[in-house]
Amino acid sequence: MAESLGDETLLRRTLAAVQPADPEAAAAAQTALDAKTKPRGSLGRLEALACRVAAIRATSVPGRLAPAIVVIAADHGIAAERVSAYPQEVTGQMLATIAAGGAAVSVLSRQAGARLVVLDVGVRGASSHPGVVDRRIRSGTANAARGPAMSRAEAERALAIGIRLAAELVSHGIGLVALGDMGIANTTAASALTATLLGVDASLVCGRGTGIDDAGLERKVDAVRRALAVNAHALDDPLEALAAVGGLELAALAGLALGCAAHRVPVVIDGFITSAAALAAVRLAPPCADALIAAHRSPEPGHRLILEAIGLEPLLDLGLRLGEGSGAALALPLVGAALAVLSDMATFDAAGVTDTGA
Amino acid sequence: MAESLGDETLLRRTLAAVQPADPEAAAAAQTALDAKTKPRGSLGRLEALACRVAAIRATSVPGRLAPAIVVIAADHGIAAERVSAYPQEVTGQMLATIAAGGAAVSVLSRQAGARLVVLDVGVRGASSHPGVVDRRIRSGTANAARGPAMSRAEAERALAIGIRLAAELVSHGIGLVALGDMGIANTTAASALTATLLGVDASLVCGRGTGIDDAGLERKVDAVRRALAVNAHALDDPLEALAAVGGLELAALAGLALGCAAHRVPVVIDGFITSAAALAAVRLAPPCADALIAAHRSPEPGHRLILEAIGLEPLLDLGLRLGEGSGAALALPLVGAALAVLSDMATFDAAGVTDTGA
Repeated sequence: MAESLGDETLLRRTLAAVQPADPEAAAAAQTALDAKTKPRGSLGRLEALACRVAAIRATSVPGRLAPAIVVIAADHGIAAERVSAYPQEVTGQMLATIAAGGAAVSVLSRQAGARLVVLDVGVRGASSHPGVVDRRIRSGTANAARGPAMSRAEAERALAIGIRLAAELVSHGIGLVALGDMGIANTTAASALTATLLGVDASLVCGRGTGIDDAGLERKVDAVRRALAVNAHALDDPLEALAAVGGLELAALAGLALGCAAHRVPVVIDGFITSAAALAAVRLAPPCADALIAAHRSPEPGHRLILEAIGLEPLLDLGLRLGEGSGAALALPLVGAALAVLSDMATFDAAGVTDTGA
Repeated sequence: MAESLGDETLLRRTLAAVQPADPEAAAAAQTALDAKTKPRGSLGRLEALACRVAAIRATSVPGRLAPAIVVIAADHGIAAERVSAYPQEVTGQMLATIAAGGAAVSVLSRQAGARLVVLDVGVRGASSHPGVVDRRIRSGTANAARGPAMSRAEAERALAIGIRLAAELVSHGIGLVALGDMGIANTTAASALTATLLGVDASLVCGRGTGIDDAGLERKVDAVRRALAVNAHALDDPLEALAAVGGLELAALAGLALGCAAHRVPVVIDGFITSAAALAAVRLAPPCADALIAAHRSPEPGHRLILEAIGLEPLLDLGLRLGEGSGAALALPLVGAALAVLSDMATFDAAGVTDTGA
């Protein structure tokens, strides 16, 4: 179905297909956990995580879920404002390194037993590794500090790419999707998107990204302010905001989150970039929030604001600020562990252990 | 060697063999991490974890380490003071369940790809599962609220059992050991041990364990106070304290930590019980502290005090209060991930990625 529809129709149908989590499945999962050989609630947030996944899957017996980590990459015209510690050519270089197996997320996805999928939706220059899936829409966005980053149709196309990828992953048996990103200057685009979607000042969301100095941070806040000012007439809805100040990978990641949510596939978000994409997805379809799992708390100030706005408590707090999906990869074993506990632990009855109800 | 020595000689030699971590190995590991394709320090505490393991192993290239989770169980005479929500028979029942594969730590060790070793050093009644290794010293301790829990010789024997197990694990290729515990009322014994080793009042270390009510908590504080009072003459050194108010599994776990440290094998501690055992180990041989990795922060008040006293920052904070080694099992994938990053990530040079030094 997804392949034959136009982008706009596919997006509309997907937004309508996103349903809230199933509280009855969560309650049934908790009842099952309470019968296991352990004091009630003694596995803390691991139990809550198992119940959350049960609610997303709408079944108290979600079983094991095969995980995939999806890294989507693109370049950003706003890099011209000198907002990153790295030159733009690094986007393509790192994408090739990720696909070749040498980047952090490559190593961590192997470690987590997750399938790694790498998409180029708009890196400047050609994709340089056969392991990168070519879904290029354009060669980087325009500089949002001077006008719209892309057209509405391009944003819809990026969203549709993410939605179609979700369907493809599900057809390959994937049941758990972690989001990853690559794109020099994409914390600037994510800051602009977050500032407009949350209605907060640029200075509250901008951080040091991969490591800019004070002058770089000033330029970043200024670039975000100019982007929001010059595009002020085109920020009335989340789709417009994605097009005007967002990014190609941000829109594709939002589409992937929506597609997963529509298929009741839990989505593990990583740091600031993927969280900004998830925020856009939630604004496009509010029940999408129920499908999200926050992997970790990054030091980027905008990340905390988004987690609070969506109502997510991250699983890890390890000072990670790399992106790529590295933090999401580290959280996957916790999701796997929560589901294994729900599936495989013995009950008091079956094990012949005295249950005092503690 | 370990098999042929007497317990007291083995203990003395082991304490002398525990050496501090190697700061040069840690520095070399950080230099190696700084050459990897990521901004410097962007993997946060995962990088610090890799360096800590390098320092423990005294090599900047520790490689992958095969993990084992060791659950050591015993009963406690102080259970007679009605300090637990569970009857004493649950120790043996749960030990059998752990060995049979149905307990939380059984499930989580499989999930972490860790070997699970289950030891009985003093459960009341017979060990009821062939998967439980019989190292029984006596059938539970005496009630420490009325006199010494065990003799000094018994505590030395328990320590020696842990030390010998460490040597055996190393000879089987294990390079990373997670500590787990089972023993009804062992948070009470751990509270008494912690209170005397840290010199703090019983009320500051006693918590609700597996779920006692207010009256139970009052009885627990009172039992700990009486144990410390009646044994006051025999609390001058950590070995005496382990014997007088500790427990058989606490002493064996302390021995295991010491044996691992002497072999430069990192030790992942779990919650309050294993941390109290590790504290005793550190008091017996202070450099043992360098070999410890704190898996998680439990809600038990004594746990936080121990972590602060040893100077450990836990990796996870998930509200876990089960014990068994369940939290340590959840942290093992993080240790594995940190080592995989150190071993397997490409350098900027090798990957042809522009390095700006950020």
